[in-house]
Amino acid sequence: MASLSRADHEAGAASPRLPADHPGVNKLFAVLAYGEIAAFYRLAEEAKMAPDLRGRISMASMAAAEMGHYELLRDALEGRGVDVVAAMAEFASALDNYHRLTTPSTWLEALVKTYVGDALAADFYLEIADGLPDEVADVVRAALAETEHSQFVVAEVRAAVTRSSKQRSRLALWSRRLLGEAITQAQYVLAEHDELVDLVVSGTDGLTQLTGFFDRVQRTHDKRMRELGLI
Amino acid sequence: MASLSRADHEAGAASPRLPADHPGVNKLFAVLAYGEIAAFYRLAEEAKMAPDLRGRISMASMAAAEMGHYELLRDALEGRGVDVVAAMAEFASALDNYHRLTTPSTWLEALVKTYVGDALAADFYLEIADGLPDEVADVVRAALAETEHSQFVVAEVRAAVTRSSKQRSRLALWSRRLLGEAITQAQYVLAEHDELVDLVVSGTDGLTQLTGFFDRVQRTHDKRMRELGLI
Repeated sequence: MASLSRADHEAGAASPRLPADHPGVNKLFAVLAYGEIAAFYRLAEEAKMAPDLRGRISMASMAAAEMGHYELLRDALEGRGVDVVAAMAEFASALDNYHRLTTPSTWLEALVKTYVGDALAADFYLEIADGLPDEVADVVRAALAETEHSQFVVAEVRAAVTRSSKQRSRLALWSRRLLGEAITQAQYVLAEHDELVDLVVSGTDGLTQLTGFFDRVQRTHDKRMRELGLI
Repeated sequence: MASLSRADHEAGAASPRLPADHPGVNKLFAVLAYGEIAAFYRLAEEAKMAPDLRGRISMASMAAAEMGHYELLRDALEGRGVDVVAAMAEFASALDNYHRLTTPSTWLEALVKTYVGDALAADFYLEIADGLPDEVADVVRAALAETEHSQFVVAEVRAAVTRSSKQRSRLALWSRRLLGEAITQAQYVLAEHDELVDLVVSGTDGLTQLTGFFDRVQRTHDKRMRELGLI
């Protein structure tokens, strides 16, 4: 998946580092872990809209990759003496809400959501990771490692929007809605978890930069919309 | 998962080997591959009945493991110049029928189906693998490799049937129904694919032993029912 560019990342590279035992790190791993479980079930559900077996297999492979990432995070949390299932509980409602409010109604919407949603998650989390010690940042980066499936999505969406400008408009709106819901839910999560705000602030050179954080997410989102042929 | 005992296997060990390029081998890999895809989606669906997040995670992990096995089979087929998606198509209806006719109505039924169904598949395929060259048999065995999750199922089912003899009777009936449907669908598949009959016959010392094949499957099924506390 595409993520913030190297230049964007370097802007935050000189920020002060938080210690690896900052309580926000457990929260970060837990919200990431629940995100993988939620994504697994969402992909399995949305695969029902696939037009053929090949599409269903692609969705199943992506879902299985999410579980591989979940297991990384579970192991990291266990290594820190934290029970992953208990730790995830407080993030369930925000992530479930995101998925409930962005339930695709077509196969193309499901594909766009997979691509854009995964990339948005990567933007949020990788920017945060930049302010964290390497041992923590490495876990985050591994859990967000690009899967090999995104090219299948890009090809299918581009082909569809090239054929139909109506599809292009619909999917562009859909993509903006995904961004809006993701930011809304991210803000809910931050409002309820001061430990996570510490992490974001550390990764973005201070609280005055929090707006800049969301601006950068918006900018990379636009880049992805271009990749998909939506703008 | 439990499989046929060593002694059962050795009964077929002296049987004539088929060549690795026997056309039945591609069919065998394809039916196994579709079985993994079907199991993935079935597990994801049945996880909705899980009483808690822990159960949903266990089902998701099992489903992800099925996709790992699918990828082994896909790679093996691609190495033989076969497109996995096209090859699987002819087995979709038998396997979909099995799952449709054995849709669990409770979480415990889902758990029993996971355990007993995986083990039945292993019995069928490992017995066939015994009559095949090592390079082929190794792929089959890897694709059926035990996952780490079965102990979670055994513990949960045993606890439930120890508490309730009514549950024990219901789940024992359910388990026999799973066996019956599995044998029915296996016989359909064999009736339509002579190349697969060659493989079964080779693994079981000839056609007169085909009844013995199903008898052995029945016997190991009983062993598993004992493990689950159902008899």
